[in-house]
Amino acid sequence: MRRLDSRQSDFDLELKRLTEWDDALDREVDAAVAEILRDVRQRGDQAVLDYTARFDRLPAASMAELEVSEERLDAALAAISPAQRSALEQAAERVRSYHQHQRQESWFYHDELGNRLGQKVSPLERAGVYVPGGKASYPSSVLMNTLPAKVAGVAEVIMVVPAPDGELSDMVLAAARIAGVDRVFTIGGAQAVAALAYGTETVPAVDKIVGPGNIYVATAKRQVFGRVGIDMIAGPSEILVICDGGTDPDWVAMDLFSQAEHDENAQSLLLCPDAAYLDRVAESIERLLPTMERQAIIRASLSARGAMILTRDLDEAVAISNRLAPEHLELSVQDPEALLPAVQHAGAIFMGPYTTETLGDYCAGPNHVLPTSATARFSSPLGVYDFQKRSSVIYCSEQGVQSLGRIASELARGEQLSAHARSAEMRLIED
Amino acid sequence: MRRLDSRQSDFDLELKRLTEWDDALDREVDAAVAEILRDVRQRGDQAVLDYTARFDRLPAASMAELEVSEERLDAALAAISPAQRSALEQAAERVRSYHQHQRQESWFYHDELGNRLGQKVSPLERAGVYVPGGKASYPSSVLMNTLPAKVAGVAEVIMVVPAPDGELSDMVLAAARIAGVDRVFTIGGAQAVAALAYGTETVPAVDKIVGPGNIYVATAKRQVFGRVGIDMIAGPSEILVICDGGTDPDWVAMDLFSQAEHDENAQSLLLCPDAAYLDRVAESIERLLPTMERQAIIRASLSARGAMILTRDLDEAVAISNRLAPEHLELSVQDPEALLPAVQHAGAIFMGPYTTETLGDYCAGPNHVLPTSATARFSSPLGVYDFQKRSSVIYCSEQGVQSLGRIASELARGEQLSAHARSAEMRLIED
Repeated sequence: MRRLDSRQSDFDLELKRLTEWDDALDREVDAAVAEILRDVRQRGDQAVLDYTARFDRLPAASMAELEVSEERLDAALAAISPAQRSALEQAAERVRSYHQHQRQESWFYHDELGNRLGQKVSPLERAGVYVPGGKASYPSSVLMNTLPAKVAGVAEVIMVVPAPDGELSDMVLAAARIAGVDRVFTIGGAQAVAALAYGTETVPAVDKIVGPGNIYVATAKRQVFGRVGIDMIAGPSEILVICDGGTDPDWVAMDLFSQAEHDENAQSLLLCPDAAYLDRVAESIERLLPTMERQAIIRASLSARGAMILTRDLDEAVAISNRLAPEHLELSVQDPEALLPAVQHAGAIFMGPYTTETLGDYCAGPNHVLPTSATARFSSPLGVYDFQKRSSVIYCSEQGVQSLGRIASELARGEQLSAHARSAEMRLIED
Repeated sequence: MRRLDSRQSDFDLELKRLTEWDDALDREVDAAVAEILRDVRQRGDQAVLDYTARFDRLPAASMAELEVSEERLDAALAAISPAQRSALEQAAERVRSYHQHQRQESWFYHDELGNRLGQKVSPLERAGVYVPGGKASYPSSVLMNTLPAKVAGVAEVIMVVPAPDGELSDMVLAAARIAGVDRVFTIGGAQAVAALAYGTETVPAVDKIVGPGNIYVATAKRQVFGRVGIDMIAGPSEILVICDGGTDPDWVAMDLFSQAEHDENAQSLLLCPDAAYLDRVAESIERLLPTMERQAIIRASLSARGAMILTRDLDEAVAISNRLAPEHLELSVQDPEALLPAVQHAGAIFMGPYTTETLGDYCAGPNHVLPTSATARFSSPLGVYDFQKRSSVIYCSEQGVQSLGRIASELARGEQLSAHARSAEMRLIED
């Protein structure tokens, strides 16, 4: 794992090189996806069936055959182990409970002219959740993407999950059952995104599509953005650990591994003002790495994109973290509250040595869908607020319009919009 | 203006045809914009200067020359009429005051295990506001796009406004001064969006870009989305008026005009259960239209995209409105409160005969940047919440990790993520 020192003269440049991630658009994928979207929009179910037979080797005579029945969901719930079921149920309960705090309510007030102003907050009607299929099965993603929609009051959540060669994970289906997904279709790829965005004879059009996927899914989401809402398009996962040197170095090493094991582009950074401590973590890494199941991926990720950074002090570590706006930030220090006010940009902040990121990934309560690639500068964890929208409400009294109408008329005339001006002026009582 | 009847057999199809708006991507514009973005990213200031000289016929030796000085802003404020200045100031004060209600605060709670959970809410650091230039000068847009950012606490708001042939509107500059814009550059088009997204030697990179623009600006915003945040990409403006037949038909006619005068693609719809009243509005339209300054645009818009729709009753009118999710919805009825609970999707709702949309466009308080083309199904008026973002905060106690760690470990093992599992297991105290 590479070592950097914030005092080295080329530090800024080295850090920039290390952390840069350019999600360049692939023109070929872009064109292929555009064609699939167009086709599904025109031919509906039949196009989705054709692509599913071709890409997932899952032939079906009708879309109805690709809908997962309630009985199948119940069977999945019965098929997993009691320990797995209990873990899923407890995680769901905690995630639901945390997200309740995010619900926004309508608000209204009267101004001094007797006008009533406010915003009506209401849930989306229908949401689509994309769940990757095949070998990589992530039941936790089902919970994290579905529960905020349910807490928001979304009436219908439609989940799509590809089943290549018919392979479907019981854990994923059980999670869908526990989270309260309303309908599940075993379709995937750009064709599933198209079906959700435009609707087909069988798949209802949704208002927003969330959930991770491969480059075809991400490109399709980007293309349908505007027609429907989407969550952010995720880059590789990242963790930045700030440590004061007081945490068991094995814990920190394992926390870095847990990010690195996702994939070779994942990024694990450790910032600490104590050089001797960095040596101890390096020893832990060397000792623990050979014991890891995903050793090859972890090694590749740490060597390509990982780093230990010696900082002047903890304040500088926080300043560097703010520059990177990491997806996951662990404050593995004795007094994390002292550092929190200075943290400006991060997807999720894990406070103190006990709070390993893993707890947030599964069951602490907060969402694990977080802004990557420095987008925490302007975006937020997936939440209930992503499944609610607002309508402004304006009621002007007869008295109110007398003063507001004059202001509006003056400004509308200044913009050469005379119909605007006259619609206000008509409501004025002549003096 | 076309007439429809909700009882006619082909009503659904006719309504769909009338209201459909397909914002098809223009491949040529897309490629041209991609090239401008690439160029500005590589060559910075010099590329922006080149495009500005070419497209806006505004040659300059350096970007500093294209920055508007504080003195120039003050001069603009002094140059407009006292009535205009007062109207801008009163509008700004009302918009600011309304938007204060949208500020979101950080929140925290302790769960039963002694864990502390919550979200830290903080403002974006820097926002960019695009303001169209040249003949169409909209000072109200400056207020509506800037003030939510300022109320959110954004430290620096950068405005860009093209000055073709050096032409700049005093009203726009005065509005910038009143709204508290921090820096103004006279650049526009895709090159201005690129400068804001990537930063140049002179223009600082921002975290989010908002504001309306032509197809080059919209396409550029779509392409930089992900690197920075953007507001929605707006389609043509729409109004849907639901009337019970009790409002002065001249008022309703003028409200329809005020939408139609924006451009020929704007859409004005009137829904009413009283056929005789629709006749009266038609008479008002015929009588008033020849008196309008923008008669040609209004006529083109009403004839291409306008309609009066006879409904069975007011409830059906609301149901149709929900299907269309209009940008502006006027409930021009005696008892608008009775209809409000049934309204599901609308950008802004104008209650009662006195509340003409114009008041909301300029000075009632709510934002006039609203979701168009049925995107009110999943998105909201521009607001303070668009300039704030959230970081999840998780503090797990030693006691908390004992139970959460076991759940997380079970689920991580189910996902074959053993580093995740072990990072939790390491924190458990052996029984």
